[in-house]
Amino acid sequence: MRLSRYFLPVTKETPADAQIVSHKLMLRAGLVRQTAAGIYAWLPLGLRVLKKIEQIVREEQDKAGAVELLMPTIQSADLWRQSGRYDAYGPEMLRLVDRHEREMLYGPTNEEMITTIFRDATKSYRDLPRTLYHIQWKFRDEVRPRFGVMRGREFLMKDAYSFDLDEEGLKQSYEAMFVAYLRTFARLGLQAVPVRAPTGPIGGDLSHEFHILAETGESQLFYDAAIDDVTREELLAADASTIARLTRLYAMEAEEHEKVAECPVPAERLRSRRGIEVGHIFAFGTKYSASMGFSIQTADGGQVHPQMGSYGIGVSRLMGAIIEASHDDNGIVWPDSVAPFQVGLINMRADDAACSAAADNIYKQLETAGVETLYDDRDERGGAKFATMDVIGLPWQLVIGPKGLEKGVVELKRRASGEREELSLETALARLTAR
Amino acid sequence: MRLSRYFLPVTKETPADAQIVSHKLMLRAGLVRQTAAGIYAWLPLGLRVLKKIEQIVREEQDKAGAVELLMPTIQSADLWRQSGRYDAYGPEMLRLVDRHEREMLYGPTNEEMITTIFRDATKSYRDLPRTLYHIQWKFRDEVRPRFGVMRGREFLMKDAYSFDLDEEGLKQSYEAMFVAYLRTFARLGLQAVPVRAPTGPIGGDLSHEFHILAETGESQLFYDAAIDDVTREELLAADASTIARLTRLYAMEAEEHEKVAECPVPAERLRSRRGIEVGHIFAFGTKYSASMGFSIQTADGGQVHPQMGSYGIGVSRLMGAIIEASHDDNGIVWPDSVAPFQVGLINMRADDAACSAAADNIYKQLETAGVETLYDDRDERGGAKFATMDVIGLPWQLVIGPKGLEKGVVELKRRASGEREELSLETALARLTAR
Repeated sequence: MRLSRYFLPVTKETPADAQIVSHKLMLRAGLVRQTAAGIYAWLPLGLRVLKKIEQIVREEQDKAGAVELLMPTIQSADLWRQSGRYDAYGPEMLRLVDRHEREMLYGPTNEEMITTIFRDATKSYRDLPRTLYHIQWKFRDEVRPRFGVMRGREFLMKDAYSFDLDEEGLKQSYEAMFVAYLRTFARLGLQAVPVRAPTGPIGGDLSHEFHILAETGESQLFYDAAIDDVTREELLAADASTIARLTRLYAMEAEEHEKVAECPVPAERLRSRRGIEVGHIFAFGTKYSASMGFSIQTADGGQVHPQMGSYGIGVSRLMGAIIEASHDDNGIVWPDSVAPFQVGLINMRADDAACSAAADNIYKQLETAGVETLYDDRDERGGAKFATMDVIGLPWQLVIGPKGLEKGVVELKRRASGEREELSLETALARLTAR
Repeated sequence: MRLSRYFLPVTKETPADAQIVSHKLMLRAGLVRQTAAGIYAWLPLGLRVLKKIEQIVREEQDKAGAVELLMPTIQSADLWRQSGRYDAYGPEMLRLVDRHEREMLYGPTNEEMITTIFRDATKSYRDLPRTLYHIQWKFRDEVRPRFGVMRGREFLMKDAYSFDLDEEGLKQSYEAMFVAYLRTFARLGLQAVPVRAPTGPIGGDLSHEFHILAETGESQLFYDAAIDDVTREELLAADASTIARLTRLYAMEAEEHEKVAECPVPAERLRSRRGIEVGHIFAFGTKYSASMGFSIQTADGGQVHPQMGSYGIGVSRLMGAIIEASHDDNGIVWPDSVAPFQVGLINMRADDAACSAAADNIYKQLETAGVETLYDDRDERGGAKFATMDVIGLPWQLVIGPKGLEKGVVELKRRASGEREELSLETALARLTAR
C-alpha cells in the first residue's frame, strides 16, 4: 500500500482525554477515532489489526471443532423474557422500540438466541455435542466508557456456546475451549493468566477468566509465580495436560483472594499483578436449556436438557491489551502475528528520481513476494517518516536513501529491538521474503 | 467439513410465510433463520456464502483504489442534525436513547460520519482524491419486511464515499466505482443492468442503479436489448469504454420510463423485465461537505468544499438475488465463485466399513488439495443425502458407493447441468483438484 493513497491520520499530539498508553497510541497511530462516547470508527490501519486478531481467534475456534455462524445485533426483548434476563439486566442493556412499538435490544450477549436457534433445529442426541460461535458487534451501555476500545460501548466479541448431553460432555467442551484460548493468546504474543472465577449473573459451576498482565489493568491478580514459567511453546501446543498443570496453580482476583482463609502459595512465590480481562468461559449447565424449553431425546428414549457453556473473547479489547503489553517510548511494537503490515518501506528522497525508482522497484518486489508492505512514498522529511513508522510499529523498516544506493546498500531496522543493519538490497529482500 | 459435526438444518417443508423462491430456498437449505421480523441469523452455510460475496465486493473495491475502514453501527443523532437529515429521515430510521438520555440511531448509511472523519484528518489538496469504504451492518426499520434477506431490516451493506477537489475528479471516482460494480456483479455470476436513476433524497446530479434481472424483482425495467449482448468477459475486463457503451444504451425504471415523451428504442428492441436493485451509486457534489463544514485548501491557496459521491452494494441482499437468478426445481445452483463448498462428498453407505474408509480417504485428499468439501458422512439413506446436496446447491457432487468401488469407479455430478459421469477415483480427484 502506498501511503500517498492511504488514509493514515497520524498525530504527534497526545490526546488530552486518553489516560492509558494503549488509548493514546491508538489515537496517535491513526488506528481508531471516537465518533460518540465509547463508540469508535476503525480507521484503515486499525481495521487491518482487528481483522488479524479476529482471524487468529477464528482459526483456533475452528481447530477446536466449533462451527461459525452469525447472529444479528438487534434482538427481541421477548427472547430475553423467556430466560428472565430482560428485567434482571441493568442499564447496560441498550433497549429500544421499533416503529411498531415492539421492544428490542442491542445484544450484549447471545445465550437466549443461540439456545432458540439450536433448539428449533435439533431432534435427537445424535445432533450433539456441538459448539457454535460467532464474531459480532455487541453493545453494553457503560455508564462511564473509558480507556478507548478497552472499555467501549460498541465492541467486537467472539462468543461460543456448547451443547452437550451430559456433564462429562460439557467438561470436554469446556476443556477444548480452554485449550483454544491458551493457543489464541499465545499466537497473539500475549501471556494470559487463567483465573478461577466466580460465576456471577450467568450462573453455573465452573468459570475461568483470562487476564493479560499490564500495569493499567483494571483487575488485581494474585497468582503462583510458577504460572510465569509456562513457555509460549507449551501454550501453542496446549492440551488437556497443560490445563491440568495451569489450573492446579493458584490464581485469583483480589476480591476472591481476600476471601481465602489461608493462601496455599508461599509468600515468596505469590505474585501480585494487574490484569486486563480478555476472555471468560463458563460451564453453566441447564440454566438456559431449561428456561428456554430445550430438551432432547437421549439414546435410551429419555429426555434431558442439554448441558451448556459459553465462551467469550473480547476481540476489539485485545487490540488495546496487545498495545499495553507491547510498546515503547516511540510507539507501538506489533507482534508479527497481528501487525497491519510486515514492512514499512521508507523512501528518504521522494524528490530524487533515482531514489524513487529504486524504492518503487523494491516495493513491487515485496508486493510480488506477498510481503505486506506500507510504502512511504510521500514527499516528506525523513525525520517525519521515521517517527510515523515508529509510532505505527510495523515489525520491519526498510530505508532507501541516495547515499546508501551509491554504496549499493539499504538499511533494515527491526522495530522491537531498534537494531539497524546496512545490507545489500538482495540480502535485505531475501531476509524479508523468506519469512 | 464433516456433516456429522456441522450445523446444517435442512428442511423438506416449504415455509408458509416465504413468498419468493430465494426466501423459500434460503430457509429450506438452512442458510438463515429469522429471529425477529426482518432480522436473520446467518447459519453456518449461509455465513460462508455471505463471506464469499463480501470478499468479492472487497477485492473489487480495493482494485479500484478504495481504502477500507469500519464505522460503528450506532451513531449520534447530533451528527445527523448537522446535515439536516435527522428530522428529514422518516420512520425507517431506528432511533434510540442511551442511559444518559442522549439521542442515538442505528446507522442506515454513513455520509455524515465519513465526512466528519475525513474532514477532521485532512489538511490540504494533497490528501485528495480519496475513496473510503466499509462493509457493515445497517438497519432500516421497514414497515413491512418481506422476501427474506431481500428486504430485511438488519442487512449487510458495502458503502463507499469519494472525496475529490473538483467535478472532473468526482467524475473519475464515479467511473472507477462504476467499473468496480460491473466487475463485481460479473464475478458473482450475475447480469446487472445499470439504470440511470433519479437522485432522490440523497440529492445531486448523477446516479445509477444496478439491477439483477429476476421475475420476482420489485422494480419494472425498460431497456435496450443490446444491453443483453454485453458478455460476461467484457464485464470482467470492464473499463471506461464499457461504461460509455453501456450508458449510451437506454435503461429506465418504469416510473421514469413513463415520463419519457418518446422512447428512443424501437419497440422490437425494447425489453421489459423485472429487476432487483443490488447497487446504487450517486455523485452528489458538495451537499455534505458544505453542510458539515468541510473545506480544503487548494494548490493556489483557495478553499473549496470537496466534491463527494457515495456508492452502495447490498451484500446480504445479493445472496437472495443470486438464488433468484440461479436455481432449479431441486434447489439452489450456486455459481462457483460464491458456493459455500465446491464439492459435496456423499458416502452412500456409512454403515459399510470399506465404503467409509474409501470416502474418508477421498475426503482427506480433497482437504489436503485445498478443495472446500462438505462430506456427508452421516448414517442416512442415499436418497436423503442426494436431496440435501441438491437443495444446498454445491457445484459438484462426488458419490462413493460399494458397487462403484467394486468396479473401481465413483460418480461425479455437476449440479448445474445434472450431468453424471462414472470415473476412476484418480480421474475424479484430478478433475476436482485441478480447478
